[in-house]
Amino acid sequence: MNYKIAVISGDGIGPEIVREARKVLDVTGKKYGFSFDYTDLLMGGASIDVNGVPLTDETTEKAKASDAVLMGSIGGDAKTSSWYKLSPDKRPEAGLLKLRKSLNLFANVRPAYLYEELKAACPLRDEIIGDGFDLVIMRELTGGLYFGERKTIEENGVKKAIDTLTYSETEIRRIARRGFDIAMKRRKKVTSVDKANVLDSSRLWRSVVEEVAKDYPEVTLEHMLVDNCAMQLVRDPKQFDVILTENMFGDILSDEASMVTGSIGMLSSASLNETKFGLYEPSHGSAPDIAGQDKANPIATILSAAMMLRFSLDLDEAADAIEAAVKQVLKDGYRTGDIMSEGCTLVGTVKMGDLIAERI
Amino acid sequence: MNYKIAVISGDGIGPEIVREARKVLDVTGKKYGFSFDYTDLLMGGASIDVNGVPLTDETTEKAKASDAVLMGSIGGDAKTSSWYKLSPDKRPEAGLLKLRKSLNLFANVRPAYLYEELKAACPLRDEIIGDGFDLVIMRELTGGLYFGERKTIEENGVKKAIDTLTYSETEIRRIARRGFDIAMKRRKKVTSVDKANVLDSSRLWRSVVEEVAKDYPEVTLEHMLVDNCAMQLVRDPKQFDVILTENMFGDILSDEASMVTGSIGMLSSASLNETKFGLYEPSHGSAPDIAGQDKANPIATILSAAMMLRFSLDLDEAADAIEAAVKQVLKDGYRTGDIMSEGCTLVGTVKMGDLIAERI
Ligand SMILES: CC(C)[C@H](C(=O)O)[C@@H](O)C(=O)O
Ligand SMILES: CC(C)[C@H](C(=O)O)[C@@H](O)C(=O)O
Repeated sequence: MNYKIAVISGDGIGPEIVREARKVLDVTGKKYGFSFDYTDLLMGGASIDVNGVPLTDETTEKAKASDAVLMGSIGGDAKTSSWYKLSPDKRPEAGLLKLRKSLNLFANVRPAYLYEELKAACPLRDEIIGDGFDLVIMRELTGGLYFGERKTIEENGVKKAIDTLTYSETEIRRIARRGFDIAMKRRKKVTSVDKANVLDSSRLWRSVVEEVAKDYPEVTLEHMLVDNCAMQLVRDPKQFDVILTENMFGDILSDEASMVTGSIGMLSSASLNETKFGLYEPSHGSAPDIAGQDKANPIATILSAAMMLRFSLDLDEAADAIEAAVKQVLKDGYRTGDIMSEGCTLVGTVKMGDLIAERI
Repeated sequence: MNYKIAVISGDGIGPEIVREARKVLDVTGKKYGFSFDYTDLLMGGASIDVNGVPLTDETTEKAKASDAVLMGSIGGDAKTSSWYKLSPDKRPEAGLLKLRKSLNLFANVRPAYLYEELKAACPLRDEIIGDGFDLVIMRELTGGLYFGERKTIEENGVKKAIDTLTYSETEIRRIARRGFDIAMKRRKKVTSVDKANVLDSSRLWRSVVEEVAKDYPEVTLEHMLVDNCAMQLVRDPKQFDVILTENMFGDILSDEASMVTGSIGMLSSASLNETKFGLYEPSHGSAPDIAGQDKANPIATILSAAMMLRFSLDLDEAADAIEAAVKQVLKDGYRTGDIMSEGCTLVGTVKMGDLIAERI
């Protein structure tokens, strides 16, 4: 079997980490009897450099025509403000938002998992970590403040900016179903996060989630306010199984949860639509400061490729093999700089890819 | 000198912790030669029970007529959804939001400080804590999503909810000034937090903050995206001095920062307007599960009373005395349950108040 994969390497460390993921995919394909046709596509800063815009229709169309998209990372983490003075459609992230919308990728799945071998990298004390934690954030990705109407106006010489947060029942229902579906394959608990004591959109969110919950009698549903959830992730991440939330809250909480594991370089993500199609990328950013230095950890991208096999291509066995190889490499004591600890062997990006490929 | 203090004990543990704060205030007054006239006011659940609404005009007027407001805690942390099916103006928190707006309390100051003696309660590892951290969140409190227009409509049988996030230059400027003013009295660093890669309101926020920064050449300004800030608070809270942000982001980040200290029972807060007037309350909630059991930690409320002396009444020496007494009690090994650790003496709410009062 041959699969068509659109590859968006992107900016910063993107190209390096995607290269290793392809290496591992190819070895896995050879072993399990399938192969990939890769189409390299430009997006983000890389596309601005060539096309003047972060996303062309051609990239969108080619991504759509593929079985799945594998992505590196888009944009820089601009420390200066001049970046934001660029017109929004000239900024790399704009491509990302537009692609999410064009491909209808409304369900963002971000696991935050603590590897036994990487406990020392976790910023939380051992008493809190206990036997480890393993949660998934299910973030709505094509609604809310991100895609609402916005404008900046001037009234009597005073500037005023307005963003709009809109959610419809339909949008909430489809992401809620995804959250409950995932919970059914896990520990059967959903924590729905909102700000229902303030927002109308959150009150609608709550009522639709409760309605969906009726179809999943085995799943325990709890509601949590977003401020409380930000606390609970630090106080006791073990309590969570699936966190289900809207776009902006999901952005904040999923990054917090990643950092709580202490090894964001290990965390994959998937963005899915109503079909089998999905976009797979690491949870971390483009880390421009270490780009091109063979320092980046490729594991998050390699694990994203495994998710791609599992969710979009139904190749569970091959996905298992990649995940097992990653675990084995950790057990064997190999580490990139970001997860390095005493007594381990420090390796670069390429070597880490090789080591995982060898263990497939 | 006699000061008029409006007291809103509120719900849950509110009455117990406010009682201890008054005890400490009275002892401090006696020592330093001033006194208080307290006016007890109803708000939140307590007001709904008596008046059917969470905030009456009478409460607002009496609060306005005072020199400052000392508050316990409002609302429960409703775990059930039926709570949010109450019409918004019947929910305790509604009183809080209305009062903030009526008194124009646009500047919410929430310190997150790690006490040397309480390091063991901090969920972060010792390597991350280092010599401790000491940051202040300056949260805009009367704008943004909290006070924007909202509505729930039905379009072709599908419900849709809309909330609006609005900020004007004027609103941003006044909170930014407060942030820089506080930074000048501290380590002279401001981290302004926004989501300028997505929101118009955040782009306006950035440009106004940069403009205000010009008047404070000694202060270092950095911008940080809200998702990144949620990570950095866990990764390295030491990097922050003053975090300046809008209402909803401030809600989430200030709760996260409180939890990062591990001792939210110790954290005070102030909500200020353009004058000396302010409302002072603990950062924690009403903890209905332990209400009336002499278990609550009154220290956050006692320290809020100290902030009141400092910010609203210009009684710095007396405020210092309260803060010193709290430190001494910790050194002497007394702890309420929430901050208890091995080798310390466990005390209840009333006893903790007595111990602090004795040390004034
Ligand atoms: C780059 C940015 C627009 C994006 C987002 O906020 O969604 C990123 O933070 C993410 O989480 O994928
Ligand atoms: C009770 C609620 C409306 C309030 C808020 O979100 O502002 C609370 O969480 C706070 O931070 O004071």
